[in-house]
Amino acid sequence: MRCFCRIEYDGSAYAGWQIQDAERSVQSELESAFTTVVRRPCRIVGAGRTDAGVHARGQGMHIDLPDDIDLKKCESSVNAVLPDDIAVFNFQRVDNSFHARFSAVERCYKYYIVSRKMPLWQGRALLVTFQVDWKLVQENIPCLLGRHDFEAFCSSGSSADNKVCEIKYAGLEEENGIRIFTIKADRFIYKMVRSLVGTLIDIGRGRIPESLDMIIDSRDRTRVGDTVPACGLVLEYVAYPGVE
Amino acid sequence: MRCFCRIEYDGSAYAGWQIQDAERSVQSELESAFTTVVRRPCRIVGAGRTDAGVHARGQGMHIDLPDDIDLKKCESSVNAVLPDDIAVFNFQRVDNSFHARFSAVERCYKYYIVSRKMPLWQGRALLVTFQVDWKLVQENIPCLLGRHDFEAFCSSGSSADNKVCEIKYAGLEEENGIRIFTIKADRFIYKMVRSLVGTLIDIGRGRIPESLDMIIDSRDRTRVGDTVPACGLVLEYVAYPGVE
Repeated sequence: MRCFCRIEYDGSAYAGWQIQDAERSVQSELESAFTTVVRRPCRIVGAGRTDAGVHARGQGMHIDLPDDIDLKKCESSVNAVLPDDIAVFNFQRVDNSFHARFSAVERCYKYYIVSRKMPLWQGRALLVTFQVDWKLVQENIPCLLGRHDFEAFCSSGSSADNKVCEIKYAGLEEENGIRIFTIKADRFIYKMVRSLVGTLIDIGRGRIPESLDMIIDSRDRTRVGDTVPACGLVLEYVAYPGVE
Repeated sequence: MRCFCRIEYDGSAYAGWQIQDAERSVQSELESAFTTVVRRPCRIVGAGRTDAGVHARGQGMHIDLPDDIDLKKCESSVNAVLPDDIAVFNFQRVDNSFHARFSAVERCYKYYIVSRKMPLWQGRALLVTFQVDWKLVQENIPCLLGRHDFEAFCSSGSSADNKVCEIKYAGLEEENGIRIFTIKADRFIYKMVRSLVGTLIDIGRGRIPESLDMIIDSRDRTRVGDTVPACGLVLEYVAYPGVE
């Protein structure tokens, strides 16, 4: 039977989601934990790849498991076998046509920014100590909404042909001194969120005189700002119709 | 001149606030950082001691610094010298009569509880996987308000004679699946918050049939529950009149 579950991980110690030769990946840890628990070679399919160092609170995956398996027991066994920095939750049976990547309808990322050294946010947020005009950053966010070709924000390492994404929400809030940039879209291209946040910050500190909509329209990779570090980025959730 | 500042720390790597022979303490790291920056032996006075492994977001301290020191520069130099898991902020000059411990009028602690393995809360929350009647826990909280003798919740290691504390606020909230117990008082005695939280959980799981007010009134240390682990506890702030 096909099973879906969510994964939360602290990505600090991993070379990213995807299996890579000789490096620790979240996917390889999960496959080896499932293989141990189910006692047969297991392959999993994730909703999407996260880069080295990126965290996730609600990544999605599916796996085909023996029909007679007790999902509740399997969930707690897999968690017991997994290292402390990876956990699975919300195990549920899904239709055989379900696919963790292709059935996803929305993804949400959050990027965390602190403006002073905060030990309780260490490894979870970008520290910005220079002056940033956050009002100017705010003003540049609404133009993100809707369908755009994000060619300009596409890392040269990307193999994606289609760079059109539909942004459903983008906002910057402040909570207890932590700035949180939230973005929801049908899909994202490689390093897009970190490149967007870096460009917004560079606009806010006066390094880029152009507005964000002009940079998007230009489709010119030389006009975007720095890509911000992975540690501040969290894949909050991947949404599917009818799945928790 | 006398200076006040706040300290945020991840207590995981420390034997607590107070200087102890041959063990890393938050206080000793601070004194050595100030000594390096100011270039003369520095002693600091903290608002109160936190135990080994307990975190702080707004601990308070004072220090006497040379009159000609630039507080802004001193703050950033001390942060640069301190390890990643300790930071100082809100440096400000205070009256010579100010005392980080004796001038404090209120302290606030939060205790964090998660009910499933959550890697992004690792080392910051207690994992409770057994059944707890949280409604029953809630019902036992209001009796905490006001002045009480907390003898029953006093660790045998405590040297305090006066065990009377005035609780100004106590509440349990749930936020994104994390349960947060918040308590504010004029003072706390040694291990009191962790003993209170442990007792509330033991009441909620049916291990203790008595209500919390009966246990407080009894002043009997044998009637309280387990002391919960330090990792879930954060000293949120220490409040002073007229000081940020």
